[in-house]
Amino acid sequence: MTPVWLNGRLLDASAAAIPAGDFGFLYGEGLFETMRASDEGIAYLDRHLSRLRRSAERLGLPLPEESDLRWGLAELRSAAGGGERRVRLTVTRGSAGNPFDPAPAPPTVLIVAQPIPPRLERWRAVYALLRRDETNPLRPVKSVSYFENLWARREARSREADEALFLNSRGELVEGAATNLFLLKGEELFTPPESAGGLPGISRSVILDRAGEIGLRAAEAPLFPSDLEEADAAFLTNAVMGAASLVAIEGKPIGDASSEVVLPRLRSLLWRSEDFQRP
Amino acid sequence: MTPVWLNGRLLDASAAAIPAGDFGFLYGEGLFETMRASDEGIAYLDRHLSRLRRSAERLGLPLPEESDLRWGLAELRSAAGGGERRVRLTVTRGSAGNPFDPAPAPPTVLIVAQPIPPRLERWRAVYALLRRDETNPLRPVKSVSYFENLWARREARSREADEALFLNSRGELVEGAATNLFLLKGEELFTPPESAGGLPGISRSVILDRAGEIGLRAAEAPLFPSDLEEADAAFLTNAVMGAASLVAIEGKPIGDASSEVVLPRLRSLLWRSEDFQRP
Repeated sequence: MTPVWLNGRLLDASAAAIPAGDFGFLYGEGLFETMRASDEGIAYLDRHLSRLRRSAERLGLPLPEESDLRWGLAELRSAAGGGERRVRLTVTRGSAGNPFDPAPAPPTVLIVAQPIPPRLERWRAVYALLRRDETNPLRPVKSVSYFENLWARREARSREADEALFLNSRGELVEGAATNLFLLKGEELFTPPESAGGLPGISRSVILDRAGEIGLRAAEAPLFPSDLEEADAAFLTNAVMGAASLVAIEGKPIGDASSEVVLPRLRSLLWRSEDFQRP
Repeated sequence: MTPVWLNGRLLDASAAAIPAGDFGFLYGEGLFETMRASDEGIAYLDRHLSRLRRSAERLGLPLPEESDLRWGLAELRSAAGGGERRVRLTVTRGSAGNPFDPAPAPPTVLIVAQPIPPRLERWRAVYALLRRDETNPLRPVKSVSYFENLWARREARSREADEALFLNSRGELVEGAATNLFLLKGEELFTPPESAGGLPGISRSVILDRAGEIGLRAAEAPLFPSDLEEADAAFLTNAVMGAASLVAIEGKPIGDASSEVVLPRLRSLLWRSEDFQRP
């Protein structure tokens, strides 16, 4: 039995079903957060819930009370047992009738916990065939309308790579399909600003906040492919895998041995005991 | 009882449910077609199924056999009774496990028939706050990752308009949130080319094919806001409403009285008896 939490109830995954009129299914109108959980709680839960709330406000999507979401997360954590898990929280508009003039409807809330997949330590990337539009006011929204990310990652895999790196319409680096990007130059870490058109990742925000603790300055800055190709090291981050090294772009190696020195220090910034919050 | 057809079975809409692991729900990975049906059949069914197939090929999405889709459409038409209906066919990847490395899975197929909403005759538009990316190879795909279209239309409504018109990154006109655009200049009809980044609409394709029959030349051409603002008339089209007049952009009236003369002629090109095909 794999438990999931759906609209207030714990169910076996095989029994969890969404009404066919749900706007998540029909129109991709919903939000999600993917989080890392351990016996101690959910890493950066407050940051995840805060991003969810900001996205919902931008979209005009009604959210359940935060206390209900926390209750669901706690219930699912109990039912799923302890250990490290990837927890996905999905909230959609529910079955709201006319898509252009939706009726008030209870949101659909789905929470699923799964084993954490093995972490790839050394990533190879290619440039995505899709680009990000930095002018899009909905770009910071982590929406279930996510098929372009899947397509880009799979397309990268067909080119013997592990991740697709998106550029924006100005030719700046933005992010990977499911990762944020950091470049190391000397003692400085750089990541594209949110205004480049990427998702404001949670591990990214923690690294920006704490890099000083490992003697690095970290800043947002516009970055171009030439910056990546000339970096001392490059890293990919997300909430579930933390940080890993990006070692090649379009088949060309990136950086020098700094990556191996800096990666453990970067990782020491993430997932501290106090970062895991009980829902 | 409102019947829907889901994966081979007729069900009441209230009982139709999608597994919570469906990629349409979790990742917006699916396609849809919205069609107009009458007692005589479904208008332009071959064109709709052909667009669906092209989109699926571009996405790498497995489709059911076309004969199964036609069978479902026929069954639903019988169960739903005759009359004019808006029929939506949705196909998603189903529950395929790892999103970046999906397992083979039976696609989810949902068919729903609904009453046709009243047709607005005179549309007012504003320019969308989102733009289309004409370089995106997935733009011609009519995907269920559709929330930006909903958002743009609702945002237009908040500005006292009926439709949002998208520009692309070159500043060209592309399409509306749920419509294609035609401009009339003298005896010529123009619509943005597919390379502008829009969806290849079905009514649009029929009008392009048949405009000669009403003494108009019709062509694809790059169009800019100044072309719209100086047009003799403008029209919006889609598969369910056919054609209607676009009479204002950003509060400014468009064109002259030609619209009222040309609109009935445009409409005479659509929904001829022989256009309704039995599934």
